[in-house]
Amino acid sequence: MSVNVLIIGVGLIGGSLGLALKESPLVARVIGVDEDHTIDQALAMGAIDGGGHLETAAATADVIFLCTPISTFGGIIDQVKTRIKPGAIISDVGSTKQEVMRVFSQLPDAVYKIGGHPMAGSEIRGVVGADRYLFENAAYILTPAPGTPDDILAFMNELLACTGARIKRLTAERHDELVAAISHIPHLTAAALVNMTRGDEEHLMMAAGGFRDTTRIASSNPELWDNIIFSNQEIIVDKLDLLIENLIKLREAIKAGDREKVLQELSSAKDTRDRIPQVHRGIMPDFSDIVCIVPDKPGIIARLGAILHEKDINIVDIEILRVREGDGGTIRLGVPSLTDAAEAVAELQANGIKAWIRS
Amino acid sequence: MSVNVLIIGVGLIGGSLGLALKESPLVARVIGVDEDHTIDQALAMGAIDGGGHLETAAATADVIFLCTPISTFGGIIDQVKTRIKPGAIISDVGSTKQEVMRVFSQLPDAVYKIGGHPMAGSEIRGVVGADRYLFENAAYILTPAPGTPDDILAFMNELLACTGARIKRLTAERHDELVAAISHIPHLTAAALVNMTRGDEEHLMMAAGGFRDTTRIASSNPELWDNIIFSNQEIIVDKLDLLIENLIKLREAIKAGDREKVLQELSSAKDTRDRIPQVHRGIMPDFSDIVCIVPDKPGIIARLGAILHEKDINIVDIEILRVREGDGGTIRLGVPSLTDAAEAVAELQANGIKAWIRS
Repeated sequence: MSVNVLIIGVGLIGGSLGLALKESPLVARVIGVDEDHTIDQALAMGAIDGGGHLETAAATADVIFLCTPISTFGGIIDQVKTRIKPGAIISDVGSTKQEVMRVFSQLPDAVYKIGGHPMAGSEIRGVVGADRYLFENAAYILTPAPGTPDDILAFMNELLACTGARIKRLTAERHDELVAAISHIPHLTAAALVNMTRGDEEHLMMAAGGFRDTTRIASSNPELWDNIIFSNQEIIVDKLDLLIENLIKLREAIKAGDREKVLQELSSAKDTRDRIPQVHRGIMPDFSDIVCIVPDKPGIIARLGAILHEKDINIVDIEILRVREGDGGTIRLGVPSLTDAAEAVAELQANGIKAWIRS
Repeated sequence: MSVNVLIIGVGLIGGSLGLALKESPLVARVIGVDEDHTIDQALAMGAIDGGGHLETAAATADVIFLCTPISTFGGIIDQVKTRIKPGAIISDVGSTKQEVMRVFSQLPDAVYKIGGHPMAGSEIRGVVGADRYLFENAAYILTPAPGTPDDILAFMNELLACTGARIKRLTAERHDELVAAISHIPHLTAAALVNMTRGDEEHLMMAAGGFRDTTRIASSNPELWDNIIFSNQEIIVDKLDLLIENLIKLREAIKAGDREKVLQELSSAKDTRDRIPQVHRGIMPDFSDIVCIVPDKPGIIARLGAILHEKDINIVDIEILRVREGDGGTIRLGVPSLTDAAEAVAELQANGIKAWIRS
């Protein structure tokens, strides 16, 4: 079985899905619906096989992914509901699922409705940020309508296997409860933390890495988040109550000088936090880090690469830690083993580059 | 004037300070006090000129930096207080300043007391994580004891200029209030957010980038943070009250369906968050990003570097976005201009490497 896929909205998520699906043996063609310049870019990147018009493309698609904002779903479903083939699958990539499943329920019974939420993103918006590996090792939740046949679900799993995501099935209700706790409430909290500074320059001037990390999501698109929050309103109010309750308990313990209680809360948080699966590196082998200080001039990356390649040492990770114009920079290199790292350091030093093993 | 510097505790912060101070024309020698193996590592990295014993080294130092945990300061000051030279400067790198200044006040009047807090860190602990540019463009707060002469403060500023940090003077009280808001409260909040999941597998499985960023600091050392929190107890209780109050207001607005109010809070947070100075890239020129998909095999970094070097295009930033063993990876390259980026993409494509401009 080889299917025609339609991606409506070829942005960061739709484009990344296209790049992955194009490599699936189950896929015949990937058609995208979006503005002309987006379609041109997506074609150039190899994210789709061609562009199409919404109503005609919907009529020939076996699997449709809605990758536009949730607020547009109602209008799109109205336009395509009489055209989608019986036996086709409709899915989406929206951040909440109960509302999406309500919209999907307007489609004929003969269309299979499987809500989807790949839990990965990027600060880059639009198709230019699309990445064939965006979903790799990320959670990808499916929320099938009750009564969806097992073989249809199995096919959807197989189809999405090309993304490398960890596909998991949940009810729309449970999904929305979980994302409230791990996404919506953290978002609201980040906003509250930022607003505590009242925009005061002295606060911002001192904001170090911890604050920047904790509040990064507060820099996201406010309209988008306003939409997400009000599509999950009731659950969010409940979860906010729980957070406020926990913060009050923590405040009481600190005020009472109960160091043991505070330490216990911090330790429990650390234990849990350390168990979050690492996405980016989960698939990479363990490796050893080298740090080296190099002059900042053209060709230095090539030179580092060549020195290690000469010794058959693979660079599995690389990061420019700091660069200062005219004064060199600090680069971290990951190599497969400690033996490689020792050999690499010796070789770099022999080439006059200051280097040491970091871990 | 050329001074002898003593660094007590040559870990991540002490080591980074040493690497920077060693390049200052104001510094004659940098002596470190720590365990033997740490001293050996610091010497190999060029972070110090030699190791010493606490009491003898304190007697010959012109400037002393305490870079051990704050809880050890009392004991160290007891050991050195009769030995420090009149006219010497004592400073530190601790996270709260009122308690430190109280400990410093046990020293003779003839010793200048200037509390310090460089607001930068790394997830790597110990001297192996030390980085000559760790403090570059980061805030570095000085809290001089009342009555510290202007010329001594000016000298301290000049001495620390080698770190590239943005040095700022505050009272110890104001410092502790600011760090509560931008560091201690975010930390406690991250812990509360993590603990809301109660360690449930389904929550953790779904934790995407936003949750990981927001709660990253909850993975820090709990004992260290317990110490920091209880060295700033009263201020933290006040600030927690403020946060709880803000969260209650947000909850009311969501419950009441007041979308305008929520949007306003999110927008205000975004505006403020976007104003936080970027540390790591502040010193780098603007650059354009290329994304390329490359086979995962030894020498690929060298090859990319060589292709761009051939065209005299400098790589100012590089990041391995995703790697999949046996199936290639996605690499982001930063080059100085859009013209360079276009030329680089053309050249990479001519060499059979899929590449496009991202920004």
